Amino acid sequence: MNSFGTIFKVQIFGESHGEGIGVVIDGCPAGIEITKEMLFADLQKRKAGKKGTTPRIEQDIPKILSGIFNNKSNGNPISLFFSNNNTKSSDYQYVNKIPRPGHADFVANKKHKGFNDYRGGGHFSGRLTVGIVAAGVIAKQIIKSVTIKANITEVGGSSDINQAIENALKMNTSIGAIIECKANGIPIGLGEPFWDSVESIISHSMFAIPGIKGIEFGNGFKSSKLFGHENNDCFINENGQTASNNSGGINGGMSNGNELIFRVAVKPTSSIGKTQQTFNFETKQLCELQTKGRHDTCFALRVPPIVEAMTAICLADLTLRNNY
Amino acid sequence: MNSFGTIFKVQIFGESHGEGIGVVIDGCPAGIEITKEMLFADLQKRKAGKKGTTPRIEQDIPKILSGIFNNKSNGNPISLFFSNNNTKSSDYQYVNKIPRPGHADFVANKKHKGFNDYRGGGHFSGRLTVGIVAAGVIAKQIIKSVTIKANITEVGGSSDINQAIENALKMNTSIGAIIECKANGIPIGLGEPFWDSVESIISHSMFAIPGIKGIEFGNGFKSSKLFGHENNDCFINENGQTASNNSGGINGGMSNGNELIFRVAVKPTSSIGKTQQTFNFETKQLCELQTKGRHDTCFALRVPPIVEAMTAICLADLTLRNNY
Amino acid sequence: MNSFGTIFKVQIFGESHGEGIGVVIDGCPAGIEITKEMLFADLQKRKAGKKGTTPRIEQDIPKILSGIFNNKSNGNPISLFFSNNNTKSSDYQYVNKIPRPGHADFVANKKHKGFNDYRGGGHFSGRLTVGIVAAGVIAKQIIKSVTIKANITEVGGSSDINQAIENALKMNTSIGAIIECKANGIPIGLGEPFWDSVESIISHSMFAIPGIKGIEFGNGFKSSKLFGHENNDCFINENGQTASNNSGGINGGMSNGNELIFRVAVKPTSSIGKTQQTFNFETKQLCELQTKGRHDTCFALRVPPIVEAMTAICLADLTLRNNY
Amino acid sequence: MNSFGTIFKVQIFGESHGEGIGVVIDGCPAGIEITKEMLFADLQKRKAGKKGTTPRIEQDIPKILSGIFNNKSNGNPISLFFSNNNTKSSDYQYVNKIPRPGHADFVANKKHKGFNDYRGGGHFSGRLTVGIVAAGVIAKQIIKSVTIKANITEVGGSSDINQAIENALKMNTSIGAIIECKANGIPIGLGEPFWDSVESIISHSMFAIPGIKGIEFGNGFKSSKLFGHENNDCFINENGQTASNNSGGINGGMSNGNELIFRVAVKPTSSIGKTQQTFNFETKQLCELQTKGRHDTCFALRVPPIVEAMTAICLADLTLRNNY
Repeated sequence: MNSFGTIFKVQIFGESHGEGIGVVIDGCPAGIEITKEMLFADLQKRKAGKKGTTPRIEQDIPKILSGIFNNKSNGNPISLFFSNNNTKSSDYQYVNKIPRPGHADFVANKKHKGFNDYRGGGHFSGRLTVGIVAAGVIAKQIIKSVTIKANITEVGGSSDINQAIENALKMNTSIGAIIECKANGIPIGLGEPFWDSVESIISHSMFAIPGIKGIEFGNGFKSSKLFGHENNDCFINENGQTASNNSGGINGGMSNGNELIFRVAVKPTSSIGKTQQTFNFETKQLCELQTKGRHDTCFALRVPPIVEAMTAICLADLTLRNNY
Repeated sequence: MNSFGTIFKVQIFGESHGEGIGVVIDGCPAGIEITKEMLFADLQKRKAGKKGTTPRIEQDIPKILSGIFNNKSNGNPISLFFSNNNTKSSDYQYVNKIPRPGHADFVANKKHKGFNDYRGGGHFSGRLTVGIVAAGVIAKQIIKSVTIKANITEVGGSSDINQAIENALKMNTSIGAIIECKANGIPIGLGEPFWDSVESIISHSMFAIPGIKGIEFGNGFKSSKLFGHENNDCFINENGQTASNNSGGINGGMSNGNELIFRVAVKPTSSIGKTQQTFNFETKQLCELQTKGRHDTCFALRVPPIVEAMTAICLADLTLRNNY
Repeated sequence: MNSFGTIFKVQIFGESHGEGIGVVIDGCPAGIEITKEMLFADLQKRKAGKKGTTPRIEQDIPKILSGIFNNKSNGNPISLFFSNNNTKSSDYQYVNKIPRPGHADFVANKKHKGFNDYRGGGHFSGRLTVGIVAAGVIAKQIIKSVTIKANITEVGGSSDINQAIENALKMNTSIGAIIECKANGIPIGLGEPFWDSVESIISHSMFAIPGIKGIEFGNGFKSSKLFGHENNDCFINENGQTASNNSGGINGGMSNGNELIFRVAVKPTSSIGKTQQTFNFETKQLCELQTKGRHDTCFALRVPPIVEAMTAICLADLTLRNNY
Repeated sequence: MNSFGTIFKVQIFGESHGEGIGVVIDGCPAGIEITKEMLFADLQKRKAGKKGTTPRIEQDIPKILSGIFNNKSNGNPISLFFSNNNTKSSDYQYVNKIPRPGHADFVANKKHKGFNDYRGGGHFSGRLTVGIVAAGVIAKQIIKSVTIKANITEVGGSSDINQAIENALKMNTSIGAIIECKANGIPIGLGEPFWDSVESIISHSMFAIPGIKGIEFGNGFKSSKLFGHENNDCFINENGQTASNNSGGINGGMSNGNELIFRVAVKPTSSIGKTQQTFNFETKQLCELQTKGRHDTCFALRVPPIVEAMTAICLADLTLRNNY
């Protein structure tokens, strides 16, 4: 369903052009400091406004509905809500007839028998990740010893990120990226195999971010090309430190105390101004489409704080699960 | 914990050198045909015996403990058990002192405070996947319209798979592989975003298989290098068929009726005969290690039926979740 | 944690004197009609205002935050929010020193290490049941063939309910009640034993209502005094109708198609004006307490619509679980 | 589904006349001592053999399938299995035609579309509770400070228990009972309201025991007849001890450190030798039935160790949930 986590449980609700986006965090221990300033700081990083991002700018001011008392978690479910203020829903009435290629429009309409809120992608919009970033702020307070940092390492296959975005803008199209995330300070033994390996939990969360199409840990796909003696990480001291870190800090599905490293592939934004040949489900004929609405040329630019937040959510839950 | 799925729930128990491996399947509808012959057929594919696989060969004869009556599921939990018959536990007594590089030995010992069953990798052994293959047989009976096929596409970076294994054997080392899985006949609308996208559920399951270090759907990592107009899949008819299939059959986290395609990266087996420089946690000194015990040179050779079974398990659960 | 249900999942958040009370309903099928009028009708039944109920009257106007589009469920999480408007928090600052007998004050303070929101009982207030009634309205739309009716059968041990309340008011104390709930039109076979018998699920939900201290199904406690031939319900036709209904419509933990009957015992409100001898945890001395704040003399009067809503929630979830 | 618990998770599988009964316990911390002797001791208490219990006597020797290594939990799922050795399935072939009044026969057949294992009640037999008792032994090791004791307080409404059973035997019928359970040493603050109050969790588990039809905590149904000043438990010291214990050790759904007290009502065994007038679903005519097979005249006699085990399972899980 729409929640994630075993003890530290995150539930997301809302639609892109509805009242707003909400998040409920269940299982947060009492006494954790949570201030509006902390929330603002991370939410700011996710906001649009830079070149290559959408002209729809939301203020993203969280309203605290429950669970926080005198700037501390009170042990009950925490709920935060972000109103939608800057919506232009008239832009979206065509999507049931001509679903946008690469988008959820067509499938959501089928799955929910025509009752889906199609405006702005509805529940399948990147807008929902605002709640994730807020939940991540709280998660980070639970795992204070851990530092998490995600960076874009290439855009459109190039490390000249600025140039790549200029190109896409000029062509009226969009562009994808690779994001690498590293986390340090993770204790040994997080992860609950058989099913809930660190990789299982993190990948589950990452593929909830719209547009992620691949993930690899440590050497990842490259490890399939190596011999065992090249890929194995040998121990060098009694803390379990290893000479190399090809496993990305995970053995047997559990954190081994070395740096956690993984990379995700973000596809190019599906909504593009460039004309596409697609199908009109009303006339049942092929047609041309130029996607209207306001979109990110490279929404991957806004994804690193979401990846960090997701990582924090996963590690907070695995930490609490490991505590007994 | 050690179960997976929301309605069709699979629980795994057992250790590599304990009594055996068991699987409990909860939520299987009544009246599904399940025979020993069906189970044998798939279990046979996973068995060792080929060049590049371990000399430990288990008979893998499932004992039906519950849930099947007159060759049909009876609506209650199905439990199957596979006895361990061919174990040589004396091989493993060193792993607490000199944990094998790349293995769960070190972390499992820390996580379970020294109480872990270290023999043959214990609960963190590939042996547990025997239960997955059995559960997959039952899952496939629930999604009869779907065909699933996984193939090794390269070993050690090469498409000459035989040669790659010969090389690894000669060098007394191990080698990894890429496995591609395709599934057809999936109805439109499986997947439960926000959290339980098809990619989230499938990746969660795949990273439970020991040794998987990466996964990508459709174009995957390549999509990060493309422009939007190159990567989008345009519709060509009212069934939702698309001209290309760069998304791997998934839009907005839900199946779109086109072929599901994903690839996983399998690392080289951690256990290798070749000498490794590592650490002796008893003497607290660096040391040399030649891994004893019986292992697969390329356990990836045995993984395709496991990938197929996992895919079936995921699709059966998503199908039942989508049914109401 | 703070959610209930397997497919139709209800999550409650909020505190008595915080921003308000919210409910998130996950797993509601798309296309279910839900109007503000439907919500108002049931919420009205729960409201205070009658003799024997609290002078705190909240308007209980639900704000729809998500999941409803054009008066129909859209297949995504439904979230409703009820603002708190009529709070007098100054009344409650003493409860950490002198926790009210019979209340959650003392335990909540210990459990949440002093970080609990103690105002008006915080998360442990009957106020949270406003969300339950709203969720019940939606649940009822899923099980349209079922009719559910809960009635107070006695107050303070008497069937003269008016007199019993007068007595309690005069004595500045409070009073409990028995509520009987009957549901008709339930199909045969709801319930998922071993663990999730109909009785298990309904009792789990009922004991979430503050102040419920007992439940019995059919003959209940009386059945322990009968012989088997007196208590068994013999079949009289091929629909499974039985001559008697001592089992309350449940056999082997599953609905048998006959009327569901159960009774719950509601204790007298813990907050009373009458002086009580209790303990001051600050002075560490015995002391006298007259509870301030606004309370129900007999909150059981407001419980029948909550019992009905809970029953609907349970039956909707069991119906969806039984559907595959 | 067929599991219970959030961290300490108990799954039951098996059928009365199948291979046997199994239990899987997930989430047991590593290093807990578990010996066959401990298991035997409690299993012995549940066994038949006394007057008023069934002549079917099973040896109830647990086979440890996984999770225990050197008499300690190893941190992975624990699985125990009890073979069925003493079955007479020919006794049961009539139950699809003439379902036994008061039994699951009729409903199970409908629910599972005729595929249910009807022999001996199949999955709906009291036989499954053997696994509960075993899980309880492990649970008790987690909550070592807690003592739990359940006793029969009356049989057939009488405190002369021996006489009541004699009467039922003479009349070829069966008889029910009341069981009272008390637990001491429970720390303050167990229970996770809103939904998972101590009463919710315990009642959920108790109604999974076949034949339980009522439960009450503390004063229970009697509290509905009292005034608030009679029913409230006033504090007498800073440990939270109360002068009375009408709440049964639970306030606001959480343990308050006083004795936990509850009572359950057990109905008379449904299977009786005495002739009953019921319905033949094959001939579609009313008919007479004398139940064959071997049954307990008063299965309540065997229930106290099951109630104790269930209580331990609930408290172990709530303890682990409260630990973070």
